[in-house]
Amino acid sequence: MGTPLHNELRKEFQLERMILFSDAVFAIAITLLVIEIKIPVKETLVDGISDKSLLQALGHLIPKFIGFLITFMLVGVYWTIHHRMFGFVTSYTKKLLLLNLVFLFFVALMPFSTGFYSEYAGPELIRQQLKIPLTFYVLNFCCLGFLNHIMWRYVTNPKNKVAEPPVDPLTAKLAKLRSFLVPFIFLLMLPIAYLSNVLFAVWVPMLIPISLKFLQKRIKKKYTTSN
Amino acid sequence: MGTPLHNELRKEFQLERMILFSDAVFAIAITLLVIEIKIPVKETLVDGISDKSLLQALGHLIPKFIGFLITFMLVGVYWTIHHRMFGFVTSYTKKLLLLNLVFLFFVALMPFSTGFYSEYAGPELIRQQLKIPLTFYVLNFCCLGFLNHIMWRYVTNPKNKVAEPPVDPLTAKLAKLRSFLVPFIFLLMLPIAYLSNVLFAVWVPMLIPISLKFLQKRIKKKYTTSN
Amino acid sequence: MGTPLHNELRKEFQLERMILFSDAVFAIAITLLVIEIKIPVKETLVDGISDKSLLQALGHLIPKFIGFLITFMLVGVYWTIHHRMFGFVTSYTKKLLLLNLVFLFFVALMPFSTGFYSEYAGPELIRQQLKIPLTFYVLNFCCLGFLNHIMWRYVTNPKNKVAEPPVDPLTAKLAKLRSFLVPFIFLLMLPIAYLSNVLFAVWVPMLIPISLKFLQKRIKKKYTTSN
Amino acid sequence: MGTPLHNELRKEFQLERMILFSDAVFAIAITLLVIEIKIPVKETLVDGISDKSLLQALGHLIPKFIGFLITFMLVGVYWTIHHRMFGFVTSYTKKLLLLNLVFLFFVALMPFSTGFYSEYAGPELIRQQLKIPLTFYVLNFCCLGFLNHIMWRYVTNPKNKVAEPPVDPLTAKLAKLRSFLVPFIFLLMLPIAYLSNVLFAVWVPMLIPISLKFLQKRIKKKYTTSN
Repeated sequence: MGTPLHNELRKEFQLERMILFSDAVFAIAITLLVIEIKIPVKETLVDGISDKSLLQALGHLIPKFIGFLITFMLVGVYWTIHHRMFGFVTSYTKKLLLLNLVFLFFVALMPFSTGFYSEYAGPELIRQQLKIPLTFYVLNFCCLGFLNHIMWRYVTNPKNKVAEPPVDPLTAKLAKLRSFLVPFIFLLMLPIAYLSNVLFAVWVPMLIPISLKFLQKRIKKKYTTSN
Repeated sequence: MGTPLHNELRKEFQLERMILFSDAVFAIAITLLVIEIKIPVKETLVDGISDKSLLQALGHLIPKFIGFLITFMLVGVYWTIHHRMFGFVTSYTKKLLLLNLVFLFFVALMPFSTGFYSEYAGPELIRQQLKIPLTFYVLNFCCLGFLNHIMWRYVTNPKNKVAEPPVDPLTAKLAKLRSFLVPFIFLLMLPIAYLSNVLFAVWVPMLIPISLKFLQKRIKKKYTTSN
Repeated sequence: MGTPLHNELRKEFQLERMILFSDAVFAIAITLLVIEIKIPVKETLVDGISDKSLLQALGHLIPKFIGFLITFMLVGVYWTIHHRMFGFVTSYTKKLLLLNLVFLFFVALMPFSTGFYSEYAGPELIRQQLKIPLTFYVLNFCCLGFLNHIMWRYVTNPKNKVAEPPVDPLTAKLAKLRSFLVPFIFLLMLPIAYLSNVLFAVWVPMLIPISLKFLQKRIKKKYTTSN
Repeated sequence: MGTPLHNELRKEFQLERMILFSDAVFAIAITLLVIEIKIPVKETLVDGISDKSLLQALGHLIPKFIGFLITFMLVGVYWTIHHRMFGFVTSYTKKLLLLNLVFLFFVALMPFSTGFYSEYAGPELIRQQLKIPLTFYVLNFCCLGFLNHIMWRYVTNPKNKVAEPPVDPLTAKLAKLRSFLVPFIFLLMLPIAYLSNVLFAVWVPMLIPISLKFLQKRIKKKYTTSN
């Protein structure tokens, strides 16, 4: 209130609060992932307490560790994208607040999806070709990804006046394409899982960064030649 | 300490700390909601591990997901209201600190209430017309809502000097009315549940945004015509 | 680095980081309290699923709710004290960092102590006069309180140069006395519990704010008359 | 955007966001440690509910409390190191973001490792000379430590331009040496555990601060005499 400078600072602080709230949700969700990995307690060790049985128990947790690591990195990368996006944002609207809230809902759901998916990702279960856990995980992640895409569309649209000066068209186009491609590639896991083999689909997330880099280069080349 | 500017900055930082502490409690409570949704583990699947039984297990979790989503949005909306309220606050008193702490207590209790409510909201339980879980949830939320109302009264009262310049009378009146109406409508769920059918009451929270918008328009119209 | 102003801002940010880190630990500990209150799940209801049995199950949780509420308020008050203390701090030392870390350790331990204490605070257990849970809770809280006292001593000691200008002697004396009195009164619960009746000791924490106000007035009067 | 000052402030805020996100992960991980310490519930008390059996139950938790305390302090110290490191950082790169994310992954894994290690650290288990839990804990901590070392190398390397003006060579050398020594000493626990006795290795972490101080003094002396 009072002077325009004070108003400006206050508005900036309100925006910062929204960003820091998002950061907290990200940080909590990313750290809660580990909660789903239950410690092998004495009572559950079938062959008694020995180094061998503990190693075996840890072995059973390997799918969980891999799931945890992948999701940690995926959510981490989305945090850096959120970070980058809000680097452009200088103002906010009710709609941006709401979009961000729905986006954070899917971030907060990730620990559940990861736990569910990795619970049924053990080696002895791969033969069974279970599709539901993978489907749930993929759909959760795709919702997160597509909402990120919608937020990029909203932020880079000069009409909404949330980024001033507006994001330059090339950066905007790249951001929108990238944010669409990631969940789209993820979604491709589902037909692969249902039509061929779950095993093929399972490892796709690890290939995303490479395929993304390749696609990005092609897009950039296209833009540089067209300009 | 030192110069008045330093004093001013320091006071502002103290206020920011209180706000960011509240944000953290909000963020943790909102993310902990998901903790109450237990992953369907192998041991609890009655019909063995198959896509069918997993789908069934997920089906049983639907009331939990709905409960999680509704509470996430409700708490999220209350965060944005808290956000807005403290956009007016320029100073703080011991009483505001205490009010905020009690308010945060009810925010922190929401994961429990949501978990309790959604545990007994399954389709096979609706016939039983259980009223206790709903009552607990509604009372928790109403405490949160009415405390928010009390905080609005406190903040918008020029005598308390926590918002300078004071919030303009129309904004203050609107905020006070709105913050009273939301928990009041929620409270109406209880007579509906006890006198008619729990099923009717269950879906009321989803109708709140619409009814609120309607009421707000009427109030605004009244104020514009009276001014 | 660079200009003195930049240096000053950087140092201030480092101090802020320490404060905000503490805030996060406080916020998480305070919100985790609720995690210890387990939802009455369908399987544990002895008399089947009915409103009556749910009300009974909630009744069994009353000691937990009271324990949660008391600890929430206690930790909340200590947060505001921490808040106030660091309002004086303008610089920090390795020792202050360490003291703060040990202090936070006891804050983080509070959810466990509260859960342990309230697990054995049910009405049917009061006859048994269990002293261990109370002792553990009281000792945890006293460690927290006495560390707070040590921190006040450190911060208000002009030799340590962490608060510049130094805290005025009256405020310093008051803060040191108050921060000593609270855990000291708590500690008195133990002889009362061991020598007379646990029931008397149990309600002492609720009397603390009143007795503190009384003592504070006496001290203030003494200081005003001596000056 | 707009003016260079605004740009500068914006960049600084982005850097702050990364730091505060790290702080949140640290704070959550450190507070979640306590979650692994399960409260001795009524049902698990073999000899009925009495002060004696509760004291016994608490006695069984002693290894967990020690594990919690040690890890709390270790993670706390690494937080202060992270704090110090980012005191030099004035800019950031994608690589620093990624390194920080991997570092935080190992921070977030600490509650699991601590819980796993302390679950099998009871007095009756020491005779069995279990090595797997210790190995897991040590490896988790060493990954954390060595990543911290890699981050120090990255930050203090003037070529990466993330710290301007660059960290002075003596400070840089000391930081790199110290950050290498801590996980290296930890790693030494493994040959000791496997070749002699787990009991010797178990207490090594408590000796680290002393041995580190000794080594640091020697290094400093060497540097002062060579200069």
